[in-house]
Amino acid sequence: MIENLITKNRSCRRFFQKEMIPTDTLRNLVNLARLSASAANLQPLKYILSNDPHKNEMVFSCLAWAGYLQDWSGPPEGERPPAYIIVVGDTDIAKIFATDLGIAAQSILLGAREHSLAGCMIGSIKKELLRELLHISDRFEILLVIALGKPKETVVLEEIPPGGSIKYWRDEHDVHHVPKRPLDEIILSE
Amino acid sequence: MIENLITKNRSCRRFFQKEMIPTDTLRNLVNLARLSASAANLQPLKYILSNDPHKNEMVFSCLAWAGYLQDWSGPPEGERPPAYIIVVGDTDIAKIFATDLGIAAQSILLGAREHSLAGCMIGSIKKELLRELLHISDRFEILLVIALGKPKETVVLEEIPPGGSIKYWRDEHDVHHVPKRPLDEIILSE
Repeated sequence: MIENLITKNRSCRRFFQKEMIPTDTLRNLVNLARLSASAANLQPLKYILSNDPHKNEMVFSCLAWAGYLQDWSGPPEGERPPAYIIVVGDTDIAKIFATDLGIAAQSILLGAREHSLAGCMIGSIKKELLRELLHISDRFEILLVIALGKPKETVVLEEIPPGGSIKYWRDEHDVHHVPKRPLDEIILSE
Repeated sequence: MIENLITKNRSCRRFFQKEMIPTDTLRNLVNLARLSASAANLQPLKYILSNDPHKNEMVFSCLAWAGYLQDWSGPPEGERPPAYIIVVGDTDIAKIFATDLGIAAQSILLGAREHSLAGCMIGSIKKELLRELLHISDRFEILLVIALGKPKETVVLEEIPPGGSIKYWRDEHDVHHVPKRPLDEIILSE
């Protein structure tokens, strides 16, 4: 069951932009992060939700998309994410957010997948611009933007031979391919 | 469904030590991490499995347990984890492993929970000792030890008022309590 969900939970970069995501859905996703483990149980992560077109446009203007796809600068109008969850770290609580961040983001995306949504964790952010546009206080370190929406692309996993290229790519039918290293390459000893 | 799994997936520090975990189960858990998202799809994380008593003892000797429980130095013989997954970062592939680490660890623990196992992410590690005991090459940065086993403790979540203490604690029945911040405290704006 969880294997199925994890397998289906692929990063998605094109969405049905008109299919809005209600605030309650975003709150439920953040709640999954809230219920997840946190280093020393400090729970230093906080969340900014965005699901209205104007706020979304501001967030979108701060993002860089899909580094390996040189000919594609991101989703065009009509295929942009209808929602975002911005994850920030409360520096009054902790200075390092590393493991918590991935735990929280994975919980959010697995929850999204269960709602037939998809998303993408975006770390390539114009942080100072985002801070200014959304009036984010200096107390909060901007860590990650999670784009969310109903997926408008097909993503497939493929296994690569040891040492093969891990760069994702799109084929002529616009299917997005994600090469994964084989299990025996990533298990060092057992 | 995923909410139920995430809620039940509580950090566990006491186990039925005699109930071994087969290598195949550990491999299946690493496979969940393998299938999860990775920043720029680099997949720099690698894994060392341990499920035999001698290797387990070496790993155990490198760990610090439950910082908030001052009177408890870790599980006694008989309640120690019957298995570990050690997560390391391959510095030939990347130098920063932060978000990947939490994503992978969360996938592993959710998978464990589905197998009626439980675990604990332990970041407080005597890294140089572990490197020496397990002969881990300098190429790999030791990031996290995930302890795994059949749980021998009850863990309950509780909601704290804003600003309440987040320190976990054990009651007189040896039940482990984990206070979580309320949702409205961690959502800054919507």
